[in-house]
Amino acid sequence: MSATRIGLLGYGNVGAAVHRLLDGGAAAIERVTGGPVQVAAALVRDPGRHPAAPGGLLTTDFARLRDDASISVVAEVMGGIEPTRAHVLALLRSGKSVVSANKQLLARHGEELFDAAEEHGVQLRFEASVCAAIPVVKVLRESMIVSGVHRIDGIVNGTTNFILSRMVQTGAAYADALAEAQALGYAEADPTEDVTGADAAAKIAILASIAFHTRVRLEEVEHAGIDRLDLSDVEHAAELGYATKLIASAIQSGSAVVARVHPCLVARDHPLAAVEGAFNAVMLRGESIREVILEGPGAGGEETATAVIGDLLAVIGTRGTGFLQHDGYFRGLDRLPVRELESPFYLRFDVEDEPGVLAQVAQALAERGASVAQVVQRSAGGVHIVILTHRAREGAVRDAAAAVGALGFSRSEPVVLPVLERGA
Amino acid sequence: MSATRIGLLGYGNVGAAVHRLLDGGAAAIERVTGGPVQVAAALVRDPGRHPAAPGGLLTTDFARLRDDASISVVAEVMGGIEPTRAHVLALLRSGKSVVSANKQLLARHGEELFDAAEEHGVQLRFEASVCAAIPVVKVLRESMIVSGVHRIDGIVNGTTNFILSRMVQTGAAYADALAEAQALGYAEADPTEDVTGADAAAKIAILASIAFHTRVRLEEVEHAGIDRLDLSDVEHAAELGYATKLIASAIQSGSAVVARVHPCLVARDHPLAAVEGAFNAVMLRGESIREVILEGPGAGGEETATAVIGDLLAVIGTRGTGFLQHDGYFRGLDRLPVRELESPFYLRFDVEDEPGVLAQVAQALAERGASVAQVVQRSAGGVHIVILTHRAREGAVRDAAAAVGALGFSRSEPVVLPVLERGA
Repeated sequence: MSATRIGLLGYGNVGAAVHRLLDGGAAAIERVTGGPVQVAAALVRDPGRHPAAPGGLLTTDFARLRDDASISVVAEVMGGIEPTRAHVLALLRSGKSVVSANKQLLARHGEELFDAAEEHGVQLRFEASVCAAIPVVKVLRESMIVSGVHRIDGIVNGTTNFILSRMVQTGAAYADALAEAQALGYAEADPTEDVTGADAAAKIAILASIAFHTRVRLEEVEHAGIDRLDLSDVEHAAELGYATKLIASAIQSGSAVVARVHPCLVARDHPLAAVEGAFNAVMLRGESIREVILEGPGAGGEETATAVIGDLLAVIGTRGTGFLQHDGYFRGLDRLPVRELESPFYLRFDVEDEPGVLAQVAQALAERGASVAQVVQRSAGGVHIVILTHRAREGAVRDAAAAVGALGFSRSEPVVLPVLERGA
Repeated sequence: MSATRIGLLGYGNVGAAVHRLLDGGAAAIERVTGGPVQVAAALVRDPGRHPAAPGGLLTTDFARLRDDASISVVAEVMGGIEPTRAHVLALLRSGKSVVSANKQLLARHGEELFDAAEEHGVQLRFEASVCAAIPVVKVLRESMIVSGVHRIDGIVNGTTNFILSRMVQTGAAYADALAEAQALGYAEADPTEDVTGADAAAKIAILASIAFHTRVRLEEVEHAGIDRLDLSDVEHAAELGYATKLIASAIQSGSAVVARVHPCLVARDHPLAAVEGAFNAVMLRGESIREVILEGPGAGGEETATAVIGDLLAVIGTRGTGFLQHDGYFRGLDRLPVRELESPFYLRFDVEDEPGVLAQVAQALAERGASVAQVVQRSAGGVHIVILTHRAREGAVRDAAAAVGALGFSRSEPVVLPVLERGA
């Protein structure tokens, strides 16, 4: 069998790892696919920056990849939105399948890209765009088709999970744990994407879209990060038996769906509570599968490269548009308002030490149908009132918290964190 | 697109669930594959035993499936070795792909079946044969090809994991926990396959074969079960900070491999320690992926059916022999003797309460290069000496234990359990 020739858009950390692993895994690839795979060309901006690349491999001329009919599949590992989007579109339109590691591109321009792939009968795969080495995209797309997956809860950002783990382990405040993560290379110099939940939002938009067969756009993913999370809440949660995790959730209820990202309390016996450090994990729940959990490293050059290569080999081994993009794949579904979601809640009110305050807080909750499961009061300057509610509607709980926050005895804005349930 | 017609061998619990889920998931299947899938015929022994089956579906005539050229893929969900093996071979030889949920068939006759599939250019898929709804076979075969997976450790038998969980939670002896598992339907009336480790051995033989691209035969999988495990060891382990789990392991070191099943101590912070009840989990370790863990229900009719359907749809969506069976897929590799494996060990010696006994035990270990990390002595009639060793060669530790067992003060055969390591 003659070699399958592939192209690379980009030859950075991930691109070079793809090349290295393809070479190192050549024997395994031949055993599995029946033939060799060869990197024919890699598009870069400045070949001088990649002195280790084999001679003749690098090119600055996109047309060399696009117009080479012997290249049937290209891995996009250059990142960014433009010119990446234009290149990927041009490749799909020239009849080449594309494998992408670019969550922002997929989350922002997925619709246009999938349409182009379908129109030209080629594949668009994107395992590496979510959780690196964890094959959650493939499992959702190919293994769970009839499993009735109606809920995904994931820890999909390793940076924030590392920071939260360190806050618990060392009692460090958010800013100090962030600085440690930056020193260790787990967080970027500008950590905004990670700590605000924006990175997780792009990932859950992708997972929600393929799980529920409907386009969930990045703009509609309500997200809160950990940048405004107070150490005292992480500590109160720990005392109550909960880990604090940044959870990305996608939920289908009837014909309505929603995706969101928010810090949550997670009970210690929940599988996601044990996910420490920079690891990622995704829990899929469905009628026929109960719960399936996938866990592993969510970042890293080689880890991401293995996902890219899994997709490359899948393109070689499958036909047509490959488990997606068939006419009508993305249905129109309603949206589930976040305020209608139900779970227990963690609340913290920072109040003046006055008689009757707790009664007024309980009253505000009771009036809106939220009942109190547990209360802890702590003196700390004023008084911290920490409440765990029974299962309640999120809108009701937020309204109650806002009402309490507006009362004279409140010293700061109340904190409202959902508690992640296992069985729901 | 005209319907893809499939056949079923068997229409029991799993077969009926496959039919039900294919019907219930018809819309999703069309979105993903571009066309409908229809169950054309199901082979059963006695149609009278399946009164709920649609008219005209059931047949007792195998030739009706084999000779129906419109059926391109058949799901084998009848179990057993014969006539199942003969039927599957006949189907492969007549150019039909086969999806099987039958671990014993795969582990015992995989070679013959894979050869037939390769020869006739059809697919043989078997996700449902290992860990039901957890897509570990697909992940190993398709996502991890260049990941250098060199070690698999799994809890792949839910019955034994349930029994071990109950022993820890309730302090029940093995026999009582087994009786409870039987009462709840987690264990068969004859639990031999599960509790002796034979079921897990078949599963790890399959996983080792596809992970390392070499045929690991069931007969060569050394296995110990939980049927001879004493509650006192589970309790000592818990006091020392370890869970006791039945672990199926497949290990590649250089060009040698080994698969085995044995009760192990698992440190509490190891992801496999938290797998409770009837759940299964598999940890894959490789250079490029570090560790990836898949967890979920390892049994159940619908859970198994989702895996069968994942395979059916994969056959429809892929070409050729589908990620396997290419010439030379299964390499000849050496075998790694179990005695050469290294890990820490848990040892229990039940001895007379005589002076100098501990010194003699420590001496026996030291002479063979195994050093003691921790010792606990407990009086219980005689004396229990519980030892955790540092990392040592299994053969050395077993020799030392046997030497101590032969001494006059030993009241019973020493217990030797490996401690599962995370980083190794």
